Amino acid sequence: IRCAVSIEKETPETERPETFLREVDGGRNGAASSPSESSVRARFERMIREAQDRVCEAIEAVDGGGKFKEDVWSRPGGGGGISRVLQDGAVWEKAGVNVSVVYGVMPPEAYRAAKGAAFDPKPGPVPFFAAGISSVLHPQNPFAPTLHFNYRYFETDAPKDAPGAPRQWWFGGGTDFTPSYIFEEDVKHFHSVQKNACDKFDPSFYPRFKKWCDDYFYIKHRGERRGLGGIFFDDLNDYDQEMLLAFATECANCVIPAYIPIIEKRKDMPFTEKHKAWQQLRRGRYVEFNLVYDRGTTFGLKTGGRIESILVSLPLTARWEYDHKPEEGSEEWKLLDACINPKEWL
Amino acid sequence: IRCAVSIEKETPETERPETFLREVDGGRNGAASSPSESSVRARFERMIREAQDRVCEAIEAVDGGGKFKEDVWSRPGGGGGISRVLQDGAVWEKAGVNVSVVYGVMPPEAYRAAKGAAFDPKPGPVPFFAAGISSVLHPQNPFAPTLHFNYRYFETDAPKDAPGAPRQWWFGGGTDFTPSYIFEEDVKHFHSVQKNACDKFDPSFYPRFKKWCDDYFYIKHRGERRGLGGIFFDDLNDYDQEMLLAFATECANCVIPAYIPIIEKRKDMPFTEKHKAWQQLRRGRYVEFNLVYDRGTTFGLKTGGRIESILVSLPLTARWEYDHKPEEGSEEWKLLDACINPKEWL
Repeated sequence: IRCAVSIEKETPETERPETFLREVDGGRNGAASSPSESSVRARFERMIREAQDRVCEAIEAVDGGGKFKEDVWSRPGGGGGISRVLQDGAVWEKAGVNVSVVYGVMPPEAYRAAKGAAFDPKPGPVPFFAAGISSVLHPQNPFAPTLHFNYRYFETDAPKDAPGAPRQWWFGGGTDFTPSYIFEEDVKHFHSVQKNACDKFDPSFYPRFKKWCDDYFYIKHRGERRGLGGIFFDDLNDYDQEMLLAFATECANCVIPAYIPIIEKRKDMPFTEKHKAWQQLRRGRYVEFNLVYDRGTTFGLKTGGRIESILVSLPLTARWEYDHKPEEGSEEWKLLDACINPKEWL
Repeated sequence: IRCAVSIEKETPETERPETFLREVDGGRNGAASSPSESSVRARFERMIREAQDRVCEAIEAVDGGGKFKEDVWSRPGGGGGISRVLQDGAVWEKAGVNVSVVYGVMPPEAYRAAKGAAFDPKPGPVPFFAAGISSVLHPQNPFAPTLHFNYRYFETDAPKDAPGAPRQWWFGGGTDFTPSYIFEEDVKHFHSVQKNACDKFDPSFYPRFKKWCDDYFYIKHRGERRGLGGIFFDDLNDYDQEMLLAFATECANCVIPAYIPIIEKRKDMPFTEKHKAWQQLRRGRYVEFNLVYDRGTTFGLKTGGRIESILVSLPLTARWEYDHKPEEGSEEWKLLDACINPKEWL
């Protein structure tokens, strides 16, 4: 009950507003020339909305058939989002690209889910601002990988009763991919795009965020990762804020060059029922990770976020066979092995 | 890591042992005439193993085609289990009937998952005994309901450093069903069998456990229950122990008369792709409940139980469509309405 009231219920909107920010943050009726217009909040929102537009255009162009359906929603006190979903396309079974801007009050347990167990705040609700883009793209063809990316910016507000208390901010996100079959050239391409983006900012980023990704997307009860990784970072605030904003922007800009060339190569490859069944089993693992471990999902479920937007990450279909074990040395086994023992691809 | 070591790894066995109990509990080499032979632990194990045999026989007889595959496993320090799974049968898509006997040490958080948030033990690992039967039966035909039942008995051992401390015991379990379409005669039949079983023991049981079931199988983030209920109880120890053992036995014996007549009526009904897609969406909800909320599943995942046995409850296939809303007044809508607003069926 505490969770249900922590974020107000969303209202459907018929049009995309120019911004979801509150006026005081440089929102709609705020002065366009006010300094808050160029706040990190405002610039981050612009960045994720442009990324949403570009990714959706690219997906529709490659898909040929499917079109994104858009849902716009807002909340009375400020904030809202745009959910775009393409379902049953020619190339993608389900593709969701969402942006959201949220003003809310976190129950302490949601704050812990968002910040990770390491960070234990003083008890009591925590007012926050969060903006992010989140996307999961599940293709039809079992040789074409699923892609996930998510870039987000959080701030906690200074508490009302302690206006001088420092406000916290942090960035999180990453891009990772989940093939059902390994094509080494695809994996190398994907990881090298991530590395190039990282290297523009700090040579330690790629090795650190690659490992973070392998550690994060770990299905503990299976002893395996959900896919072949990429980059992941969270709670990042120990660098210059402008530098991290530029880094998140660069990462979001890399989604299309990292992913689309792989899809172009794999989308029309012939496949058998056996390949499809294996893809469906891997989709089952995707569901397990997202519902049991994913912080974004558990955070969303706990804060009473828009359920359909949160769970759009789940695949259109998935499968669970009892005690399925791929034959040693088979292509299925090779994928599983790489999920159990993460490799250095570059 | 604390979780992983709390229960030892299971070893596959080629034969079913007569009992999984430790000798001191009346196990294999324990004196057959010792008083521990008739301990609640020993009698509960016999009850669930007989129930497993009977239910599997009934399922195979109705299925006609599918046969259960059996996996027997044990743990070095005592305990083990028998998993039986029938997959891709003529009537059932996936049917799992498992028994397990576990000696373990619970990390405090798993103890809380097993006992519920209300019970907060002193910190530190808790040695325990748990035995149970757990079954989920997912039929092919969208007009035939999924059935779940689970009966379990827990004891915590007296701590070694405080041998005089009282040992706790409790019973839990229930039988509930999850149709994709409502046939009122089926729902009434199912609930009346549960009520008759309850009424043999206490007139307060059915109303109390029916409500408990509606409350327990609640998918909070959806605001709906996973199905049309039945009975559920947990942490039950405020009645005579013999009476509760007899009650659990009666409930397990009622599974076949409650469920099989419904399956006989529905298994061959003609259906369309639309019916199948709706069943698959409801299966998706089943997955959501089990992975996010179900105590047995979360307990199993946390204690490092046998994953394939725990996750056999997941359907063979499931589906998630973005923002699916059944048309008001349709058969799909009626089912959803009954999941949102639980009804009194008798």
